[in-house]
Formats: sequence, C-alpha cells, structure tokens
Amino acid sequence: MTGAAFRFELHHTDRASRARSSTFTTPHGPVEMPAFMPVGTQGTVKGLTLDALRATGCQMMLANTYHLALRPGAEVVAALGDLHGFSGWSGPILTDSGGFQIFSLAHNAQVTEEQVTFRSHIDGNLFELSPERAVAIQEALGSDVAMVLDHVVPLPSDAGLVREATDRTVRWARRAKEAARRADQAQFAIVQGGLDPALRAECAAQLAELDFPGYAVGGLSVGETPAEMYQVLEATVPQLPADRPRYLMGVGRPQDLLEAISRGIDLFDCVLPTRNGRNAQAFTDHGTVRLRNLQFERDLRPLEEGCPCAACRHSRGYLRHLFLAGEMLGPILVSIHNLTYYQRLLEQARRAIAEDRYAAFAAERIKRLGGDAC
Amino acid sequence: MTGAAFRFELHHTDRASRARSSTFTTPHGPVEMPAFMPVGTQGTVKGLTLDALRATGCQMMLANTYHLALRPGAEVVAALGDLHGFSGWSGPILTDSGGFQIFSLAHNAQVTEEQVTFRSHIDGNLFELSPERAVAIQEALGSDVAMVLDHVVPLPSDAGLVREATDRTVRWARRAKEAARRADQAQFAIVQGGLDPALRAECAAQLAELDFPGYAVGGLSVGETPAEMYQVLEATVPQLPADRPRYLMGVGRPQDLLEAISRGIDLFDCVLPTRNGRNAQAFTDHGTVRLRNLQFERDLRPLEEGCPCAACRHSRGYLRHLFLAGEMLGPILVSIHNLTYYQRLLEQARRAIAEDRYAAFAAERIKRLGGDAC
Repeated sequence: MTGAAFRFELHHTDRASRARSSTFTTPHGPVEMPAFMPVGTQGTVKGLTLDALRATGCQMMLANTYHLALRPGAEVVAALGDLHGFSGWSGPILTDSGGFQIFSLAHNAQVTEEQVTFRSHIDGNLFELSPERAVAIQEALGSDVAMVLDHVVPLPSDAGLVREATDRTVRWARRAKEAARRADQAQFAIVQGGLDPALRAECAAQLAELDFPGYAVGGLSVGETPAEMYQVLEATVPQLPADRPRYLMGVGRPQDLLEAISRGIDLFDCVLPTRNGRNAQAFTDHGTVRLRNLQFERDLRPLEEGCPCAACRHSRGYLRHLFLAGEMLGPILVSIHNLTYYQRLLEQARRAIAEDRYAAFAAERIKRLGGDAC
Repeated sequence: MTGAAFRFELHHTDRASRARSSTFTTPHGPVEMPAFMPVGTQGTVKGLTLDALRATGCQMMLANTYHLALRPGAEVVAALGDLHGFSGWSGPILTDSGGFQIFSLAHNAQVTEEQVTFRSHIDGNLFELSPERAVAIQEALGSDVAMVLDHVVPLPSDAGLVREATDRTVRWARRAKEAARRADQAQFAIVQGGLDPALRAECAAQLAELDFPGYAVGGLSVGETPAEMYQVLEATVPQLPADRPRYLMGVGRPQDLLEAISRGIDLFDCVLPTRNGRNAQAFTDHGTVRLRNLQFERDLRPLEEGCPCAACRHSRGYLRHLFLAGEMLGPILVSIHNLTYYQRLLEQARRAIAEDRYAAFAAERIKRLGGDAC
C-alpha cells in the first residue's frame, strides 16, 4: 500500500468460493468489503442529502473526474475544500480517471501514445487528458482512491485494437504511478483486455508487477453477456495479488455482484440503483417492482417488508402516485430504497462470508432474484 | 369549536400590535401560532422526505383538494389510509376546498348557484363541485381542517361580480356547514370581497355569525399591492371572533407574513419557499441569495450563518454547482433551507409576541429584508 494511510486486512475467504471479507482503511475511514459505492457523478448521489446517503449504509462514494473536471472544474472543487468539503461526504471517496466517459460520452476522442484529446459533451470545448494530467486532476480533487487513466475500447472490437489499447493501458499505468505525489491518495490500476481471457490474464499479471495498492477490472458492463463477464473475472482475478483490494468497475445488477463476489471481487460501483430508482423501478429480494403498474394503485404494502429505508415507510400506492404525478419525491424515495437494498445485500454477503456459507447464500439469493415481483 | 377534538387557546396579544400567540389543538396534535404551513399540493411537499419536512420545524401541512381529487382521486387516497396514511405525515393537515384552483388552474369554470363545473387541467375531463361535494371529498381525504368552497374572482373585477361572488361565498359556507359530518374535522370559512374594505367587513361579519371553528381570508395574493392587502386585513380581522384561528390563504413573502401577523393573522401557507427553492433563490435574513450568480462560484459560506438546515452544511459554491449541473439535490436543499427559514421566522415571531416586543421585532426584520443579499 502507499504509505501508512492505507491498509488492507483480509479477514476470511469462503470455503466454497473465492468470496472474501476484508477491511480497506483509508484516510477518511474504513470500508468493510465486499462493498458497493453509490455513484455521485457530479459530487452528489442524485437526489440524496448527506443524511439520506449515510442512512442507506453507504461507506464509500464514487465521483466522476470527467464530469467534475468539465463542471465546475477541478480548481473550483479544490477551492471549495476538495471533494470532501465540496460534497460534504466525510467518508472515503474514490474517483475514476475519466477514461470510461471519454470513450463513451465525450465527442471526437483521439488517442495518441501521449494522451487523449476529446470534446466536452456539454459545450464542445476541446480537452486533453494524459495519464499524468489524470493524476494531477484527481490529486486536486482530493479523493482517497484515484484510478489510473486507461484506454477503453468498445466491445466487440477488432483483436488488434483490443491488444493495442490493453498494452497502452499498462504503459499509461506505469506513467500514472510515476506521476503520483499524494501519500494520502491510493492509486488503483485497471485491467483491460476485452473479452479475451488470455489477454486479460496477461494485462493483470503485468499490472501486478507494478505493485499498485489496488486493482480494478475495467471495460466491462458494456453489452457483453453475464457469462462472458464472469469468464473474464475467472481469468483475471487469480493474476491479482491476494493482499490488495479488487474493484469491478460499473457493475451491476444484484445477481452480478453476488457472482463477482464468488469470483473474488471486493468493490463495486454502479448507477443502476439510482437510475432505476428515478425510473420507478425498485429492487426487492423477489425481483423488480415496476411502480407505474396499475396493480399497485391501492397497494398498502411497502416495497419490501422489514426494509428500514425512508421509502418503506410509505405504501406502494403512494409511491406510484408520486411518479404518476411527476413529483420529485418519487425518484428520491426509490433511489434511497434501491441504495439501501444494495447496501443491505452487501452487508448480508459480508456476514455470509464470515460465517463460511457464502456460496449457498449467493445461490439462494440469485434464485430468488429471478423475475419481476408482484 | 367543533367538538372536543379541537381547541384554540389564545396566549398573548402584543401590546403594540394585533399580533397574537396561541395554540390550536387538532386530532393530530397542536399547532403553535402564528404558524406557516408548507404546501404539499399532491400529498408531498416537493422534494422533502418526511424526516426532512419534520426537521424544518413544520407543524401542519397543507394539501390541495383539487389536485388530489383529480389524481389519484379522493377514494384512492382514502383506500391508502386517508391523507395521513397516504402522505405519511402524522401531524395536522389542512386541505383547501379547490375553489382557488378551479378559478385559476382549471379550464372552462362555470358557476351556478348550485355548483361550479370545470375541466381538469390534466386531461380535460369534466368535473362538478358543489359546497356539499367539497365537504364530502375533504371528509374522504381526512384532513384535520377543511376549507369551505368559495367563489373566487380575479382582481380587479367589476364591482357587481365581486359582490355576487362574495354573497354566494356566504351562502355556500352555510351549505358547507350543514353538510359537514366528521367531528374530527374542523371547517374554516373563507372571507371574500375583493379589495373593497366595506364588502370584506360585511362578509366577515356574516360568516362570523355562522359560528365556524376558524376563519380564512381568501382571494388575496393575486396581483394586488402589499398596501392593498394590508388594508383588506385591517378591515376584515376586527370582524372575526377573537377566539378562533385566522388564516391568510396563499401569502406570502417573509415581510408579508410579518405585516399580517401585526394585523392579527395566525396561520399562513405559500408555495414561495419551495418554488423559489427550486429556482435557486434562497431566503436569508438579509434578503434573497440568487445562487446562479457567478459571485457565488467559490463562496465557502453557507446560505445563512447559524442556520441548522441540511443545505447550510454546504457552501454556496457547492449549491450553485448543483443548480448549474442540473442536479436534483439543488432544488431539494434550497427548498429545505427556505422552509427552515420560514419556520425559524415564525418561531422568532411567536417568541417576540410572548415577550411583548413583536412590533419592534417585525419592524427591524422587515427593514433588514429590504434587498438582495450578497
């Protein structure tokens, strides 16, 4: 790890899977893993006040470097007390490098060995981002964990292009490591390699040699099948050092998290709980509740019996009314519920690992998650 | 008062004004007056969870009969546990009668002595509302305080039309009183009469004879000057019984509340704190802070020093960023701040009345509220 500010303690590995429980300590507090990070793209998890975010069980928040660098700008965030003072979130924060957004959201992305240039999706302004600049921006943002800039290609892509982007990702990771200055910020490298298990394993092994304090699996959740994603994890994870946290970026559905934990992943982020929450889709242990459906008009039940969240103090009928009436409180409450659902799921996973029954726990939960709830 | 479920206790009248402090007890708890009700048009104060609403200091919430009757319908609200169960607000709730919305929002409003017919602004469906039907709907909604149906005319209007609508409002109040059945719901009459002090006084005196448990002043905040409004209050309030609550509907700015309290008003509602909050305008003791202004880009100060609300845990710079980035949290936080501002102002007013220094308190606060804050 980078200095004494960070510590990774592995507590237990499940007897029937690769699932593991651990504590990752940062300058802004510990993260019990496996953990899920809500996405605070622009320095806010959409619709949640700090109290609401804390009440979901959130330990660590993610923020997007690409979005914040464009608006309000990293120097404004720094002037307002870095990401912690800016957002008011006093717990750990992870920032991505912007790589994923540049290749998915920005316009005219052009990659050279030196850097990537692109135009802002907001106003068309031209930006340049190099591995060193991505480090500098994230150091200005002041996150606890910074991600190295990676070269992301769409899937499927030509094998030559995937190989080129993967090799560049390793070279850029080395440059990022050399550029890092802050002892209170840990840098995670990102494994690329498309859907090719051998290339993924090779990339992971090369990055492992560079001795990063943490590793991520990137470039997934871009349209591949769940089976393809699990295969990539099976090829990648064994190449990563056991004594460092492993983060699967941008994934995913509850069943994806459970499957990835089985394969040795410790950390996740995904927009799904908040995006689906804004669209009136609630996660429950028995599948998705689509609140706009007429069947819920006079339904007095909460979304989930026993859920302690603010939404579950209301009836499904009331929540449905909020969406049909176009009231902000609908998206707010179902986002809160979905994030609480994810945090409770991860808490249960941690307990199952500690009690050496994770494999059975995950199988049972995945089975129940099968279809839509009624 | 209607039965033992309601009680109005007058505590003190200011020595240098008509301002008075009192407690109005309802089946869902007491309301310390003067009091401000946030507007929960569709059964939710826009953007606030129950915990957030309670934290503002809210005692009593208002909901709009017109909106709820159209969507989701009074019988759906009743099936979901009446307004208290539906919204989850366990404190006192007041519903208006729909009169104001019918004459301002609905299409093709046609008044006969029997009833008013109109088309829904949502889907154009035809509705009929009589004084008796307004009572029945509000009894189904289960509010603590129900308003009688009144005939509202725009200002300015022909004197003959104002007279006709005012006389009808008195006749409709009598019909509403005869139609009321619930002992756990208090019915407030509404004084109309345009901007004519004599007509207002006459209407108030006629309604006072009907012995309602509370009285409202309606038909204001529709474009008249503050001076005209205060004149109407000066003509009206002395005609109302001293032992009943007095409610000024739809008003207003902080200075309007302070002026109206001076003239003997006990209860208010207004969309201003939430509507302005959604538009990045924050109320402070030194005037309005317009958060979109560039001057706040790197402003580390909270909206108001010493304010305990969730917004004031953030900098003005962060709040500005939320609005510029189109984040829901901006409207949420500034709505919370503005409602907290109103509740704190009313709490201070109650204390000033109790300590016999209201006139000086109001004069000083109105002076400070002069301009825009910087």
